[in-house]
This record gives sequence, C-alpha cells and structure tokens, in this order.
Amino acid sequence: MNNALVKELYEAIDALPIIDIHTHVNWKRPCAANIGEILSYHYYTELVNSADFQRGKFPFDDPQELTRVMLPKLTLIRNTVQYDWLMTISREFLWLDADEWCEENWQLIFDRSVEVMGRPEWREELIAQANIARVFLTNQYSDDLEGLDASFYSPCLRTEPFALWIDRPAEREGLGVFLGRPVRTVGDFSAVIEKAFAKFTAHGMGYAAMSIPANLVVSQVADADAQHLLDKMVGGTPLDALEHQAWAAYAMCRLCDACRKYRKPYHLMIGVNRDAYAQGVPSGMDLFDSANSLRGYDYLFNTYPDVRFPTAVLADTSGLELTAAAWIRHNVYPSGHWWYSNQPTEIARELRRRLDTVPGNKPIGYFSDAYYLEFVLPKFRMYKFELAVALAERMERSLIHPNMEPLGLDGAMDIAQTLLMDNPMRILVIPAL
Amino acid sequence: MNNALVKELYEAIDALPIIDIHTHVNWKRPCAANIGEILSYHYYTELVNSADFQRGKFPFDDPQELTRVMLPKLTLIRNTVQYDWLMTISREFLWLDADEWCEENWQLIFDRSVEVMGRPEWREELIAQANIARVFLTNQYSDDLEGLDASFYSPCLRTEPFALWIDRPAEREGLGVFLGRPVRTVGDFSAVIEKAFAKFTAHGMGYAAMSIPANLVVSQVADADAQHLLDKMVGGTPLDALEHQAWAAYAMCRLCDACRKYRKPYHLMIGVNRDAYAQGVPSGMDLFDSANSLRGYDYLFNTYPDVRFPTAVLADTSGLELTAAAWIRHNVYPSGHWWYSNQPTEIARELRRRLDTVPGNKPIGYFSDAYYLEFVLPKFRMYKFELAVALAERMERSLIHPNMEPLGLDGAMDIAQTLLMDNPMRILVIPAL
Amino acid sequence: MNNALVKELYEAIDALPIIDIHTHVNWKRPCAANIGEILSYHYYTELVNSADFQRGKFPFDDPQELTRVMLPKLTLIRNTVQYDWLMTISREFLWLDADEWCEENWQLIFDRSVEVMGRPEWREELIAQANIARVFLTNQYSDDLEGLDASFYSPCLRTEPFALWIDRPAEREGLGVFLGRPVRTVGDFSAVIEKAFAKFTAHGMGYAAMSIPANLVVSQVADADAQHLLDKMVGGTPLDALEHQAWAAYAMCRLCDACRKYRKPYHLMIGVNRDAYAQGVPSGMDLFDSANSLRGYDYLFNTYPDVRFPTAVLADTSGLELTAAAWIRHNVYPSGHWWYSNQPTEIARELRRRLDTVPGNKPIGYFSDAYYLEFVLPKFRMYKFELAVALAERMERSLIHPNMEPLGLDGAMDIAQTLLMDNPMRILVIPAL
Repeated sequence: MNNALVKELYEAIDALPIIDIHTHVNWKRPCAANIGEILSYHYYTELVNSADFQRGKFPFDDPQELTRVMLPKLTLIRNTVQYDWLMTISREFLWLDADEWCEENWQLIFDRSVEVMGRPEWREELIAQANIARVFLTNQYSDDLEGLDASFYSPCLRTEPFALWIDRPAEREGLGVFLGRPVRTVGDFSAVIEKAFAKFTAHGMGYAAMSIPANLVVSQVADADAQHLLDKMVGGTPLDALEHQAWAAYAMCRLCDACRKYRKPYHLMIGVNRDAYAQGVPSGMDLFDSANSLRGYDYLFNTYPDVRFPTAVLADTSGLELTAAAWIRHNVYPSGHWWYSNQPTEIARELRRRLDTVPGNKPIGYFSDAYYLEFVLPKFRMYKFELAVALAERMERSLIHPNMEPLGLDGAMDIAQTLLMDNPMRILVIPAL
Repeated sequence: MNNALVKELYEAIDALPIIDIHTHVNWKRPCAANIGEILSYHYYTELVNSADFQRGKFPFDDPQELTRVMLPKLTLIRNTVQYDWLMTISREFLWLDADEWCEENWQLIFDRSVEVMGRPEWREELIAQANIARVFLTNQYSDDLEGLDASFYSPCLRTEPFALWIDRPAEREGLGVFLGRPVRTVGDFSAVIEKAFAKFTAHGMGYAAMSIPANLVVSQVADADAQHLLDKMVGGTPLDALEHQAWAAYAMCRLCDACRKYRKPYHLMIGVNRDAYAQGVPSGMDLFDSANSLRGYDYLFNTYPDVRFPTAVLADTSGLELTAAAWIRHNVYPSGHWWYSNQPTEIARELRRRLDTVPGNKPIGYFSDAYYLEFVLPKFRMYKFELAVALAERMERSLIHPNMEPLGLDGAMDIAQTLLMDNPMRILVIPAL
Repeated sequence: MNNALVKELYEAIDALPIIDIHTHVNWKRPCAANIGEILSYHYYTELVNSADFQRGKFPFDDPQELTRVMLPKLTLIRNTVQYDWLMTISREFLWLDADEWCEENWQLIFDRSVEVMGRPEWREELIAQANIARVFLTNQYSDDLEGLDASFYSPCLRTEPFALWIDRPAEREGLGVFLGRPVRTVGDFSAVIEKAFAKFTAHGMGYAAMSIPANLVVSQVADADAQHLLDKMVGGTPLDALEHQAWAAYAMCRLCDACRKYRKPYHLMIGVNRDAYAQGVPSGMDLFDSANSLRGYDYLFNTYPDVRFPTAVLADTSGLELTAAAWIRHNVYPSGHWWYSNQPTEIARELRRRLDTVPGNKPIGYFSDAYYLEFVLPKFRMYKFELAVALAERMERSLIHPNMEPLGLDGAMDIAQTLLMDNPMRILVIPAL
C-alpha cells in the first residue's frame, strides 16, 4: 500500500459531499440527543451482548444509564470497525479523544454529548460538518411525511408490509385503515399500493425497498391464485412456506407495476434470516444464509425491464453473483455494502470486482444504513478509505499493466465521483444538489 | 506491490509462447476481419446493453454500422478489464492509441482495422506477434474438420448435444444423420459417441468438453433406464428435471467410456445458468448460481479414475471446492478462470489457493475462451500480470517467511512455465511445440 | 507489504508459547519416531497420490520404505505450504537444509530422523524447542486416559460415536461395553454420555467435539421419537437420511446437556463430506460442500445459551457466516482455520474479518490439527506469519485511516496475544501456564 497516495486520494474523496441513499434516520428527530442514543445502536449493543452476555437486556429507556453500563464493556470491542465509527463520532463531534473513553469518564462523556447534541443548531452543524447533501429514509406506508424537507430527505417506501407481513392481522388491518377500507381483494391490494406510491411521490419519494429472506423465488402468480391466498389469510388460515412465497411474488410484481407507473426504482436488499438469535438485542437477532441464490429473481428482472433494481446483498457469497447480474442485466445496479458485508474485507473485494467488470455508470458506491445522522460520516469514511486504497492500487497497477492506460489522480477521482455522486443521482433521479 | 519486480516477472512471463487450451475460434476464419467483428464479441455488446439498454439489439450483420453504434457508448465501460483488452488490440494490432477511441474517430478506427485485418498475411502475423503456439477449439460433432491444421489447432468435442440437448428433436435428428441411422437405442447412442470420437481423434482431438448447469448430480444409470428415457424422448414426451439429469448422467458416463478408450480428457465447465436474462445480447444471457455444489461429481470422478478431468468453475464460491478436489483427487485438474471468474479479483485468489495447496503439476494456468485470435493476447496478458503479481508476492514473502525457502526469479519462472506450458502439454498430451 | 515490520511482528509473535487447542496427537506416543511417520501424514500421501496416482496405496507399515517411495515424488508438491511445513521440520529438528531433500538422500534423511527422534529425550526437547505449553487431544470415549499428564494435555471427547455412528452395530456395542450394559433406551444413552463426561473430566477434559457433515439441521426431538429411532437401530432397520439427522439432533442436545452440567464447551467442526474420493489415502478421502448453511444450528445455539460453542468451518463460503454468528451470538467463538481452509488465502481473509467485526475476546486464533507434535511448530508458524502480515497492514492503515487510532507494536502484540493465548485460555478454561 502506498500510504502517501492513499492519503492523498482519501482526502480528495472525503471532500465530496455525501449522498446517502439508504438510512433508517427518523426525519423528525434525525440526530441523537446524547451518546446513550448513539450507544443504543444495535451495532454496539449486539457486540457488547456478544462479548459479555446479558441476554439482550440493556437499559434502552435510560440513555444515561445505558452509557454507564456500556462504557466499561467497550474495551471488549475496541478492535472493531464499529468502535472506530464511535471514536470518529467522539473526536469529530464531541471533541473527545479516543483515550478519554475509559470507564471513569462515562459521566463526562455523557454530559459532553448532551452539551453538543442538545443544542437546537446541532442538526444543521452536523450536516454541514459531515457535508451531507441528501439522505434517503426508510418509511412505512403509514408514516407521517407532512413537513418533510424533500430538498434534503427522500422518503422510501418499505414494502415488507405488502409482500411479507400481510398475513399478520394487525398489518392487514393497518393497510386497510390506510386504504380507507379493508383489504379483501387483489383490487384492494393494488389500490393500497397505489395510494402509498401516490402519497410518497407527493413527498419526493426515493424508491420502494424491501429486505428479503434468502432464496426467495419470484414467479408469475395469477390474480385468481393471489385472491385465493388473500382469502385464506383473511379467513385466518396460516399460509405455508410456498404460499408465503407465492404471495410475496405476486406482491412484488404489483409493487413493480407501481414502480413502473411512478418511474421509481425498487431497492432490493437480499438475504436476511430474521430472528435467528433468540437472546439478541433489538435489531441484533438477524443473520444471513451463505447458501443464497439470486436465480429466484430472474422472473422479476426479466418481466420489468423498465424498472430499475438497485440491489444490495447480505452474503459475501452473493457478491460475484450480483456483480455478474449487474454486468449483463441493464436494470440491476449493485448498491453499497450491506450490514455484515459492510466492513473492509467485503467492501474491498466487491469494489474491485465492480470496478473491473460492471459498466462504470451502474454501481451505487455506498449507503450508511444509519439510524442517526451522526453515523453517516464515520461509515462513509470507512468506505471512502477502502475506495482510496482500491484506486491507489489501480493507479499503481496501471503504470505497469500491459493492458491498462496510466490512471492518474484525475481519472481516479472521476471514478470516485461517479460511484458516490453521479450514479446515485442519475439512477435514483436525485435533483441537482 | 513491488512494481519493479512485478514488471520484471511479467516481462519474463510474457515471453512464454501461448498455449490456449480453450477457445471458440473458428479454424476456417480464426481472425476478425475488422473492428466491428471484435466489437460484436458478447463481452462488449453485453456491457453496452447493460450500460445503455437497447434490448439486446445491435446491427450484428453490419460490422461498420455496429462500430458506429458502439463507439460512443464505450466510454461507459472504460473502467472494465474488457475495455482494456480492446485497447490492447487497438494499440498492438491497429497501432491506435487508446485516446483515439472517441466517437468522432469511428470511421478511422474501422478503416484502419480493415486495412490491418483484411490482409491475407494477417493471421500469420497475428500468431507470430502474439506468440501463439497452439489453440484448442470448440466443435460440434458435425463440424467440418477436413483441412484443419492439427499442428496448431486441437479440435475439442462439445458434448452438450449428447448429454443435455438430445431431447430436442432437431438435435436428435442431427445425431442420427451423423451416425447414419436414427438414434433409437442406447447402442445407437454409444455408437454415435464412438463415431464422433473416432472422427475427432483423426484430426488431433484435444478433449471432450461440456458446460454444465449448476448442481448437476451424476449417479449410476442403468442401460435399461436410459433406454426408457430415450424411448420417452423419441416418443415426444418431455422429460422432467430429474429425468433430464438422469440422462445427462448416463450420457456423461458413456462419454467417459469413450474418453477412456481414446485416452482423452473430459474438460468440465461447471455452473452456468443458460438464458437467465431475457433482454440480453447473443451469448450475453447466461448467469451462474453461487449456491453450487461439486458433490454431484463424486460418482463420475470415482468411477473413471483413468480419465483426466480438467475442470473450470464459473462461481467464485466453487473456487476452494475445486482447489480441494484437485488437492486430493488425482484426476481433477483446475483449469483456468472461466467467464465471470475471468477477472483479476477471482484470478488472484484462485491462483494463490492453487499455488499454495495443489500439487504443482496439476493446475492448467489459463485459457482465453476467445472467439477470434485477436483476443488471445490481451486475455493472456491479464492473467500473466496477475501471475506476476502473485509470484512477486511469493518471492517477497519467501525472504522473511519462517517456513519458506527464498524463491528467486528462476524459481518463480519455473512455476509460471509449469502453469502455462508444462501442465497443459502433459495433461492434455500436446505434442512438443 | 512492509517486510521489515512483518518480520519484527512475526518474531515477537513467534516468541509466544503455543497453546494448541485441537490436535490428533496420541498422548502415549506424541512424537514421530522417524521421517517416515512424518511422511505418512495424509497431507503428504494425499498430495503425492494426487500428483502421481497410486490408488492410495503406500507402504504405511514400513516407514523406511515409505520414505524411499515418497522422496522422489515430493518435488511435485514443492510449491505447497504442506511441503513448507516439512522443510521446517527438516531444518529445525533434523538440521537438514531443504536442498538436501533429493531422491538420492532418502536413506540419509531417514537415518538422521531416527537418530534425532529415536532418543528418549526427544519429546521434551521438541516441546521446549517449539515452545508448546498445552496440547488438546482427540479422544474416543473408550480411550485409555490413565497416566495422561493433565498439566500438558487436555483430552477432548469426540462425539461422532454418539451422534453420527450409533447406528453401526459395532459402535453401539462399544458404547454398551463402556456403559456396562447395552444401550437400549434413551436413558441408557444419556447415561453413557454422562459416564464419558465423568471419565474425561477426571482427566482434565478440554471439551466435547465433533466434525459434522454439511447442512445438518438440528431441531427439537422428543425422547419418545428418539427412543423410536433407537429401537429401529437396535432392531437392525437402517435409518433414512432424515432419521439420521433427527438422531444427530437428539444426541447433540443430550451432549449439550452434559456440556452444561460439566461446564465444558462443545467444539463444532462443520462441513465435511466423508469418503468422497474413492481412491484416496487414509484420511485423504474427505471433501467439503461449498453450499453449506449454518442456519441448521440456530436451534442448538439458542437452546443452550450457557454452553460455549467454539466453531470451525471447512468451507470458505461459511467464513462470513461464522463471523456474523460470532459477531452477534454470545456463545459462538470462531476457532482457527480448519483443513482445506488452513492455508494462507483463507487464513488471511478470515483473520481480517474477525479482527474487524468480532469482539476481541472471542476468536480462538489457531489450532494445528497435528497428528504428531512435530507438526505443531510449522503449522503455527504459517498462521503466525499471516497474523503478522495482517497486523502490520493494520498498523500501516491506522496511520492514515480517518476512523482509526494509530496502532503501535504493543497494540498489535496485544491482539496477537489475545488470539493465541488469552482467548483460548479463558474460553476453554485452561489453567494458568
């Protein structure tokens, strides 16, 4: 590694404004109020629960107490990139050096965090300091979007309620309330999707999105068959696994119909096994399956050639499969590095694969998946550093590679800007910054 | 990366003549006639179709028009290794620098290509310039091999018609025409295989070959059961998936019988999903499945210990499984880096795995899979560069590794020559160059 | 790679005593008596069988003849890390340089080995020279443990006989002999487990262990259902695949009951396909399946939150799945790098994944899997070198990484010591050295 070159590249890349195309930020309260809220992020509670078991129990409703409880245990995860994110938050936003993170200082750290984050101007300062230009959100159909600043936030419609959870009576009832009448027919079902898209579009909708279990197979399902499944659910009969999948397939097609009509992408996040770990913390109970095939999406991708599918995969084993799909399929766009793959080893490999074989106008570089805006900067830095390493390597190889033109700093920065700005803006139709 | 050492190694490796053990070159017209034919290669049309969708439609029958259409879109794939191959073709064969590849120059580029490639001596010049010593072909049983120069070309018998496509009436009829009587019995079937092997052997047959879908399971199938399947096909009843697999298993065993008799290897290319992408260009519609087990080949490998199986895998997830098979199985030889795995990330990893754990006399370094001889040089260069990087790393590690003897330039070149020349020549029984 | 830094780190790491948490060493005769026994290790016979086929036949009962036969063929595997282990044994223990390993010297090498290894003080010298502090063993329930030096050896109970082999009459009979009465009821079954744990605990039991086929699914199995399966086995009716799996699940839960009671970990080694290669040498017939899901362990891990599960995986494709499990599950500990994954490519990747995302107190760095104590040093060196490379890279990255604190030599050595000593000692409850 050429440290000087990596540093130079990193600094240039770091100067690019951040477009964060997938977060879980709450637009009504996008920032943490204190370090306890930062520490309540599952990346910390799950690691501490793993390192020093407490049955997933943490004082989540008392951020100060949570801070007191977590502080001494953080030494157990000091090797992790997640801890590095925390230190960046500390240094950059709280002006506290990493060596101040010791057990005795928990109150000092908490107080400092309240001092900084409690100020009304904190949100604007943070956005300016982190140079965040746009943030995509994760929203339920029923979320209140009134007053949302569409010049900064893009609300995104989660589609699990439609495709994966509609067999739950409460979810079905919620959809009915949203629609204004019970969802009893496939016509009602299309209507509630339509209503959701109309609502979201009025607020600058980014895209539809879903996190999807491993090995889902989407096939054609006729309206009559779907109606039969819906009748069954309404009648209270549980669906079996194949029926579940058939409904998911039907629903995803109806959602694609809406994506087509409203010209919105469908962001797929493929491969999660929910609730695998019984003693986990909230949001820290899910894993993935390394045996995961993308083949089940052939029907969807082929049937909706005019819908864009930015796609993230959870399993490292799906990395080249996604790369190959994006290499030949015009409507599949590799999107970021998700969750368990959102760490240097996977990022480095997928980045290089995509750079070497996928048309340059297709990959979306990164998203943070952040719960609070404070996480956007450290997570993007992690990615930007790996990008700098990959581009530096590419520059150095190009000097002696028999097939390559020399790649200079400007060319490398063009690639970085394409991944981090041009592609997300064009693929997701983001207005000029 | 030690650039000076990599360069030195690369240059030494580049001086080795090329033995290309798998191509799709047409021996009657092995070279492109113009740059339009080069650009018609699916690696370009599929990437352009992916980057700027045109429903797989390109003016394939008009190379000049294809050139005109493709040129402006190539900027979208300038980051790819495939584009790098093209630039090598341009620089080395057309004497056109990469910066001349701009929209305005399409006619100039086309004309220059015709000027160079249109000359009768082009084939010989190209072979000399690229230093190609031998080229293996991909042939159907019915291909005309009369006049083929067996001192340069090794025809290889594709076995899909026998094992995977015989349920198609046209294919069955073709086999019958070749045999001289309809294929109605398993005896006929063995006879048509025998006839194909005899024909190919008379022309310096390289090996039998097949590209195989993911997760095929080969098991013992009795003649009577196979006859039943054949009767069914002849009778016009479609086979189900398990019957298809049973026939494939039976056919592969009969093909292995012939390999045994004629002492020819069976080159397996494992893991392709055909026709996955509906809107793709010709040869750009196939993908692979990351969940692919090689376990289904246990029976075949065990039952034919005296048949050599050079084996390529499409999925990166099969890489270590192939390495392990080659590590203990005497008749499995890892062969090159195929298709979606034919790029630097996968090559670098598989190369290192094979070098570290597979007996040195077993891996076949590389094949180009080229459609025209022009592609052989740039593709081999890509591999040779990764090989140089891997060997340079090995040399540097050896200086401080507690288990290793210092590896010098000569030792590194021995490895390169083994992978690129000695192994393919011995395993595939290639006559001295 | 910064060679000077790697070397410095390696030397510091090499000075750490070795705690080897999984071997196949025979405590009554832990050392080889001559180089023929070293060469009888399947890592050599399988590679030679693969490189130069001899149908798995070697003169295993005549070490001198085996040496004579193997010597000339070793040149075929000189590229492998396994050969590098052998050269370390030669240099370090036999004072024979690598260049003396030529065909003509076979007798000299053999004689020298007898001279060195034949001495009564050899065991102690070797342990001192290799700086081995503790060695875990692989034992059957019926193994004689009387006289075992529990201050150096930790016997570990293999559980295949209970969970995977009990349908074999001889194995069932053996268990009955050990119990003192035939195993006829699930009560007998729990009793024989209990007796085995009691025996092993009296001799300083390390843990229970099992190597497990790919894709096992452990689910709840009632006593009555298990009794039914046992009746079937006793009655001589073969179990089908699902019944086999149900029994394995039942047995693993009963074994976990005992682990819980005796506060012993259960070391899982996941993903082996036994007897895949028909013509292989002893212990050289097994492969793995790249399509392997860890999902089948959810029930076990969740049901026994108070049992520790150090876990090794055979497939590279399971690497991130194991990392993710260890990242959130408190009772899963990634353990070493097993068999086909015990080579630099896989070690480098898994090491970095674990360092970046798993709490630092959880990974167990390495085990040798050695059959003789002579192998412990070279195998640990291989790992320690990769660890030095990874830590050097981490140090260098930390100097310019925007999220990282500078990592110095002391910090890097803390990590090394944690992986190699602190974690195995705490997780496996090893008494102070």
